[in-house]
Amino acid sequence: MKQRVVGIVGTGLIGGSIGKRARRNGALVLGYDRDVDAPRAALEAGSIDEAVARDDLYRRADTVVIAAYLDGVLAEIERIRNAGPVRASLVIDVASVKASVVHAAEGVPNFVATHPMAGTERSGARFADAELFENRTWAYVPSGDEALDARARAFVESFGAIPLAVDAAEHDRIVGFTSHLPQILAWAYGRRAAAYSGDAFDQLVGRTSSELLRLSRSDFGFWRSVLAANVANVEPELRALATALTEAADALATRTAESET
Amino acid sequence: MKQRVVGIVGTGLIGGSIGKRARRNGALVLGYDRDVDAPRAALEAGSIDEAVARDDLYRRADTVVIAAYLDGVLAEIERIRNAGPVRASLVIDVASVKASVVHAAEGVPNFVATHPMAGTERSGARFADAELFENRTWAYVPSGDEALDARARAFVESFGAIPLAVDAAEHDRIVGFTSHLPQILAWAYGRRAAAYSGDAFDQLVGRTSSELLRLSRSDFGFWRSVLAANVANVEPELRALATALTEAADALATRTAESET
Repeated sequence: MKQRVVGIVGTGLIGGSIGKRARRNGALVLGYDRDVDAPRAALEAGSIDEAVARDDLYRRADTVVIAAYLDGVLAEIERIRNAGPVRASLVIDVASVKASVVHAAEGVPNFVATHPMAGTERSGARFADAELFENRTWAYVPSGDEALDARARAFVESFGAIPLAVDAAEHDRIVGFTSHLPQILAWAYGRRAAAYSGDAFDQLVGRTSSELLRLSRSDFGFWRSVLAANVANVEPELRALATALTEAADALATRTAESET
Repeated sequence: MKQRVVGIVGTGLIGGSIGKRARRNGALVLGYDRDVDAPRAALEAGSIDEAVARDDLYRRADTVVIAAYLDGVLAEIERIRNAGPVRASLVIDVASVKASVVHAAEGVPNFVATHPMAGTERSGARFADAELFENRTWAYVPSGDEALDARARAFVESFGAIPLAVDAAEHDRIVGFTSHLPQILAWAYGRRAAAYSGDAFDQLVGRTSSELLRLSRSDFGFWRSVLAANVANVEPELRALATALTEAADALATRTAESET
């Protein structure tokens, strides 16, 4: 049987992790990144078999994974559209918002918008982990072509992930609350943490605070375009949470003042 | 060698977990709770050897652990003070704030204020876990009596915990940020989560959101007196975080509006 060829466009943490697992699954993995140093790191990390030129990747890959930041995904979809039909029978992206991707990819053959619910606060192929997607949800937006969607589900399952069909707008509304809001919260919390330091602080950090501090180390570069694309969902939740915290502060102050009189 | 006798005042999750581990360590464990049904549950959970009357507990125990809510701890310290010197060579509490406890216990012999950084969103002796304190920080406020403090450290270490000496005011300032603030945040987040539900939501919950949702299920009864006692530290942090979230919402809206023009 002919060896499957997987092309990774964007060989960072997610792309590198996909490559590592695809290689373990027996695929030949080609990597391309607009940052010329990234594929070398991915080669060293064992995430890809070959660093190739972009055209070469599209000429040879059966499956293409666009694992760039959102801006990069949208630009890549535009390039695909302009270059004409691709050889691959499946092209997916892995960006954290889906409505803008689905909109951009309208009419692009064999494209399925997806989002693996995995990642860490770290970035770069040197942290790539073949187990990153194991038992994690990997959402996809049904394309309307059942055979194509079945290929996307099978691909996702080969990473140990659990495919979830979800409407793009619904996806963005939910992850705005479950992922984007906590990220902004973590940055705000992390900035306040600067007022506390020392050994006692480190030892008095609990489960939730340590989780928020971990997340606060996430790179803003990755998030910039995602948050901008999902502002309609994230902004109202931010304001609602700010109001709830102010109300909690008021209630705390009032109750305490009452109990003291 | 005479068997050590540990008396637990308040046989809930923390008291029950302490009892379970103390029994495993070879102690005879006596339990008392103002809720008459609680010691029976602790007996069934294997957390205590005997359910006893309060006076009986103080007559027999070498070490007394006051594992009540903060209000209960303060009331218990007052009862000890009124009843005169206790037989036990070590009396500790495990409340989540320390300044008010230290203040209440001034002059009470053999008392050390402590706080194990452990617990779950659940309550009740039926969830008691002998491993709850393993490798967790167990803070204590030095009493000024080095021999007494050494007994407190040795007791804490027998639970697998790591003792941390910390000033009461500094403790409260830090846990206000690392524990009390995240708790209020989690409740606010949990209330907003009511607008989202269904299978897709459950599968798109990430690490931080699932941690916040777990914490949001914490019982407010436990927290009421703790938050009131630490309002001076918690209230300003709540307001600062609310401001930071509002600023983030403004920045997001402004940046997005700019990039659209």
